[in-house]
Amino acid sequence: MIKPRLLTPGPTPVPEDVLLEMAQPVFYHRSGRFRELLARVTQDLQYIFQTRHTVLTLTSSGTGGMEAALASSLCPGAKVICLIAGRWGERWRNIALALGAEVVSLTVPYGEPVAPAQLEDALRAHPDTVAVCATLCETATGVKNDIEAYGSITARTSALLMVDAISSLGAMPCLTDEWGVDVCVTGSQKGLMLPPGLAFVSVSEKGWRVIDANKASRAFYFDLRKYRDNLTTNDAPFTPALTLIRALARSLAMLRSTGIETLWAKYAGLARMSRAGIMAMNLELFAKVPSEAMTVAAVPSGIDGNALVSNLEKWHGIKLAGGQDSLKGKIVRLAHMGYIDAFDILAALSALELTLAKMGHALEPGAGVAAAQRELYRVSLDNASSST
Amino acid sequence: MIKPRLLTPGPTPVPEDVLLEMAQPVFYHRSGRFRELLARVTQDLQYIFQTRHTVLTLTSSGTGGMEAALASSLCPGAKVICLIAGRWGERWRNIALALGAEVVSLTVPYGEPVAPAQLEDALRAHPDTVAVCATLCETATGVKNDIEAYGSITARTSALLMVDAISSLGAMPCLTDEWGVDVCVTGSQKGLMLPPGLAFVSVSEKGWRVIDANKASRAFYFDLRKYRDNLTTNDAPFTPALTLIRALARSLAMLRSTGIETLWAKYAGLARMSRAGIMAMNLELFAKVPSEAMTVAAVPSGIDGNALVSNLEKWHGIKLAGGQDSLKGKIVRLAHMGYIDAFDILAALSALELTLAKMGHALEPGAGVAAAQRELYRVSLDNASSST
Repeated sequence: MIKPRLLTPGPTPVPEDVLLEMAQPVFYHRSGRFRELLARVTQDLQYIFQTRHTVLTLTSSGTGGMEAALASSLCPGAKVICLIAGRWGERWRNIALALGAEVVSLTVPYGEPVAPAQLEDALRAHPDTVAVCATLCETATGVKNDIEAYGSITARTSALLMVDAISSLGAMPCLTDEWGVDVCVTGSQKGLMLPPGLAFVSVSEKGWRVIDANKASRAFYFDLRKYRDNLTTNDAPFTPALTLIRALARSLAMLRSTGIETLWAKYAGLARMSRAGIMAMNLELFAKVPSEAMTVAAVPSGIDGNALVSNLEKWHGIKLAGGQDSLKGKIVRLAHMGYIDAFDILAALSALELTLAKMGHALEPGAGVAAAQRELYRVSLDNASSST
Repeated sequence: MIKPRLLTPGPTPVPEDVLLEMAQPVFYHRSGRFRELLARVTQDLQYIFQTRHTVLTLTSSGTGGMEAALASSLCPGAKVICLIAGRWGERWRNIALALGAEVVSLTVPYGEPVAPAQLEDALRAHPDTVAVCATLCETATGVKNDIEAYGSITARTSALLMVDAISSLGAMPCLTDEWGVDVCVTGSQKGLMLPPGLAFVSVSEKGWRVIDANKASRAFYFDLRKYRDNLTTNDAPFTPALTLIRALARSLAMLRSTGIETLWAKYAGLARMSRAGIMAMNLELFAKVPSEAMTVAAVPSGIDGNALVSNLEKWHGIKLAGGQDSLKGKIVRLAHMGYIDAFDILAALSALELTLAKMGHALEPGAGVAAAQRELYRVSLDNASSST
């Protein structure tokens, strides 16, 4: 009877109404009913992406959306600048390398963002760059990168700015058009409150010019032009994951009725709560510039990080994510995006306090939860004053 | 209150128990719980594929599985023989062309299968062929191709036999290992009784030798080696469509407990029912060698095939598929795979009789249903005698 609470940075919890949508009977996708559905979700996605451009829906993981962005735009040998602040920046690089691109890697230590000046220098040194690949929230470290600054730099060049906004879109500002993001990618299982299985890609006019001019692309399933061309009649080029798209319509309706600014404010509040709670239990924040979508704490020396994550789930039903690759056992990652609210965060912090204490970490019982509660109190006051 | 019945050759109806599985809460996929799930479905897939080799699970449509097969195996310029009996044989060719392959197309008129002798000649003329791409059931026409014969021919060469068994696996014999199928591809939304969103790919030892030796592949998301290597610890290389995999475990358990030979016999019986019913209402079968997974009727002259399909749904809730591309309006396609039984087929034939009669086609009321019923009666007798 331990109640499970999922607070990993993907998948995130799916609202019960959305889950039940997936239990509805399937129907034929070459039909007016499907076209009406796809038209509706595409429009709502444009709102969440904050773009007037078309948003394409692919059946794949988020990585598939990233590959579609690069495979549609690049010909072999094309130059790509990858801004790498962790595993997901590395993902961009690995895809680009597989596609035969020439990659310029701008790498920073884990926990730090990539400074816009680094990009500026690299673009000056490589004026033939076709694409700049960045990560809004680096899920591996919890770092927020300054996409707006990257956008103002790439806008002055012929390079496209491609942004992995997978674990952040909907949970923190991503002003696709305003910031000059040419290709924005997200996945279903994060801020959009769905199970994994769908990727979404928006493309700017500048982006389409590059893609349409690219005669050497080897993309087929990931050829974005096919998705765009089919979308003129609200069709999908390949059999789509229908149940997930039904569920998407439901979750987008929930998000849209809340309003994107309200969502951003909500998760920013949860981020402040989480950071305050983490620090009050004598833990250090891992990210130098933390994202609003997740909070990452460094596991204190003397504590086994893998055991911490496993005990949290075993003792309290709280599922957080540990670190991956070289960060395995060294960090713990708490998500606040999608269908996660302040009381879920309180539960996670409470469990974290109890578990750390039991594992021998020195802390003052209640300090973490109290610090988070004080932030929550402040958020409530803000909301009260803004609604009067 | 018109009761909907889905009898299209994908998606097929999903059992209620399987639908409800998708309404279960999501959980973190980097966990023992997911690994246990993936191990179980992989084993059950091997049974359905009739292979001792690993079956890989991809989040994509069936086309993604086909692309993975080719993209993992081919280097640009590699020669591929495509056996083309319809739209889905053309799909193989279009993927191969996108990947930069040199394609030899063996094309037959719609409604006919590709003769094994054609393949034999082509392989003799092109001994440097890397892959032969075939379609078990050509969903566009309802034709069954002789994969067993293709397999015995390719087995004598260095070429790999790749089979699109998307709208057939589980519904008609596909003896992957015994027939010498090197890469077998299927999708979730046909014989496996699931919504669309997953593709499955099996690879033989000969297939892995070619894939492992291929240093020029540009595959990333569709790199089958990643799926194989991750599967050694029952992991997925990219965030998998978890809810669909949960549902898969449920549907595979249902299929496996029925037994593959029983399934084949069941759908073969439904095929006989359908063909008898179709012919008894003065329609012609479109496929010269019909598949056991679906039955395709030519729309009689004077009847608007698009209106027929639309009226069937509007008047009787029976959803069949029409033709695509140049066959649009000319054929009607009835599936008997997955969670479709004899009484669903009777319903479809009954509605087809009623609708055709109302649209002016000359037929004897009741003849189609009676002919189908006599076949059903014969199947029941066979079952009774075989169980004594």
